[in-house]
Amino acid sequence: LNRQLAALPTTIFTVMSELARQHGAINLGQGFPDTEGPHDIVQAAADALLDQRNQYAPLTGLPELRAAVAHSNARFQRIEVDPDSEVVVTSGATEALAASLMALIEPGDEVVLIEPLYDTYLPMVRQLGGVPRIVRLEDPEWTLPRQALAEAFSARTKAILLNTPMNPTGKVFSCDELTFIAGLLKQHDAYAICDEVYEHLTFDVPHLSLMALPDMRERCLRIGSAGKSFSLTGWKVGYVTAPAPLAAVVAKAHQNLVFATPPNLQRAVAYGLNKDERYFTELSADLAHKRDLLSAGLRGVGLDVLPCQGSYFVMADITPLANGLDDMAFARLLTEQAGVTTIPASAFYEPANGAPPSHLLRFAFCKQESVLREAVSRIEAWH
Amino acid sequence: LNRQLAALPTTIFTVMSELARQHGAINLGQGFPDTEGPHDIVQAAADALLDQRNQYAPLTGLPELRAAVAHSNARFQRIEVDPDSEVVVTSGATEALAASLMALIEPGDEVVLIEPLYDTYLPMVRQLGGVPRIVRLEDPEWTLPRQALAEAFSARTKAILLNTPMNPTGKVFSCDELTFIAGLLKQHDAYAICDEVYEHLTFDVPHLSLMALPDMRERCLRIGSAGKSFSLTGWKVGYVTAPAPLAAVVAKAHQNLVFATPPNLQRAVAYGLNKDERYFTELSADLAHKRDLLSAGLRGVGLDVLPCQGSYFVMADITPLANGLDDMAFARLLTEQAGVTTIPASAFYEPANGAPPSHLLRFAFCKQESVLREAVSRIEAWH
Ligand SMILES: CSCCC(=O)C(=O)O
Ligand SMILES: CSCCC(=O)C(=O)O
Repeated sequence: LNRQLAALPTTIFTVMSELARQHGAINLGQGFPDTEGPHDIVQAAADALLDQRNQYAPLTGLPELRAAVAHSNARFQRIEVDPDSEVVVTSGATEALAASLMALIEPGDEVVLIEPLYDTYLPMVRQLGGVPRIVRLEDPEWTLPRQALAEAFSARTKAILLNTPMNPTGKVFSCDELTFIAGLLKQHDAYAICDEVYEHLTFDVPHLSLMALPDMRERCLRIGSAGKSFSLTGWKVGYVTAPAPLAAVVAKAHQNLVFATPPNLQRAVAYGLNKDERYFTELSADLAHKRDLLSAGLRGVGLDVLPCQGSYFVMADITPLANGLDDMAFARLLTEQAGVTTIPASAFYEPANGAPPSHLLRFAFCKQESVLREAVSRIEAWH
Repeated sequence: LNRQLAALPTTIFTVMSELARQHGAINLGQGFPDTEGPHDIVQAAADALLDQRNQYAPLTGLPELRAAVAHSNARFQRIEVDPDSEVVVTSGATEALAASLMALIEPGDEVVLIEPLYDTYLPMVRQLGGVPRIVRLEDPEWTLPRQALAEAFSARTKAILLNTPMNPTGKVFSCDELTFIAGLLKQHDAYAICDEVYEHLTFDVPHLSLMALPDMRERCLRIGSAGKSFSLTGWKVGYVTAPAPLAAVVAKAHQNLVFATPPNLQRAVAYGLNKDERYFTELSADLAHKRDLLSAGLRGVGLDVLPCQGSYFVMADITPLANGLDDMAFARLLTEQAGVTTIPASAFYEPANGAPPSHLLRFAFCKQESVLREAVSRIEAWH
């Protein structure tokens, strides 16, 4: 069997969700909303099913969804895109990421990654023969270490994988940081795979895509997710926006990995992307409110809550409560004894790159207010 | 960019479907039914959408679908399977194939392929660093060349990729042939990836899975497709059945490639797989009838139609009509002048393995009777 893959642990999201189930714990681990997305979008998907659209969709996606993705690029980031040649619909952002890496990397190519990082990044880069160069951000500020980033680039750098808004830190990269990254890409003639699945989930600060910066149009593959933008994480509809020559190769990777994505879901997502500005404003306002509620509650029980500008997640420093336990041990205890499940932040680090921090837990706040309140009371009652 | 991927042509299915659209031709190219699957299955998918099941499904699939896949293995092939550890649901058979190859192959491993072959096999093997060993079947009998197959196996063989019922030949491997292959797998301690997406589409002969043969239970990854079994090719729900240690690694590949498959479609497919025997008998009887109708029609216009025991496809020798044109040129002419689109069989061959036959077209008969009749009349009127 493939040894690298066989050696991979089961994803921490599955492990912790399973643990939550076993202990009847409130699951603030895996990032999915506990309410459904907009009813009209779900109804559109159901209508499309019964409207005889159940054979293979076109390889790169339904024309109506590609047009909606292009429109969304224009209205939110002022990126002009040809829907016919510059958009590829995928079976979720995970597949978008795999296809983008397959399109770019050849064995020996270096890929710059920023740590803490989402758990499929490293194994996919390695499986394709890519060589990861990891740059670590430090809590609680998660400032981009510019010197270290510059040193991670080399003549063999093919791409950087950039996640903003960033999971698990809640960081939203600033225009100044993105401009610095853009400079490195030009200097080293490299690409960026931009994982922007939380593009509509920022609080107080705007999301800016690297692709919207000068000269970056031709160097970026920008990934979006209907699951995250419409609170329908099960649907697994993603999209890649890229310059035509790159999009063509992403489409070929998609051809071999999945081939096509369910047409009824695509139609419903096209409908969703065309919603007016208010939908997106309300989505982020609702999540900002939940972030505030959970953050205040966690501070109330004595945890040091880190700032969070975007995503579904807030990080908390457990030092005040953990009695020297590490994040994994404390997360287990919290599930088993308090009945609240989180994700130990060390899961987002590559140990070979230096000992990960062991004092941080990630809490998902994309849950009903009553659930967030109950989670806080449980921790309060327990500690 | 990845040169191997960038050099891949757009899949012939997309090319020919596009050509069909441009010329208003009847599309007997890409293999998808032109009617919808059973209404009750589609309704089940719509009901599930509105029944609040729209967040991430479990990584390996909904328990109800894994149970249905296990049940289906038992009733159709007498293969006993643990639904919790030996089934992985994927986003279609294409992803199942990619994940199975990822789970097995390391760079340098050899994979035995049988030609003519489906068009994602070779690029996926190559992208993973696998070394293809191709054995060619010859028309019109498509008999397994046992000597050549035995010689393709070596100490470096990791797996054979076996497609039965076979696309594009319509061949169903016999028990005797499968037993021979089983012997080679034992002798060389190798695995089989069994692409059995057409398992329920055989005519006059039963489908036998290699996995059902003695000692093959632990060596096979068996792939099925809801799209093909329920005439809903757009849904992209597939499943891999494999011994637990192998299934665990396939699940890790799935984790990195897609992560999960839409839950409402999974629930509906579970419902479909539990349909009584009659559904499956009628499905194959209906297709057998269509095969007969199209074959007789094509014979009537002077083509030599090859035997077909399964799948959506029948092959025809164009020599009597082609005036020396090769299959691609004749397929274009047939689209542009007669208004009937097919797939040139040479697309299923690796030219580096010797010049492909240029006298065969593949016709899909998974279409309404009236459409098949009209296609035949068009060819008749034209030639
Ligand atoms: C694909 S399961 C994990 C969901 C997620 O994005 C997260 O929890 O970080
Ligand atoms: C995935 S598109 C091709 C459909 C198919 O299986 C075929 O036509 O051979």
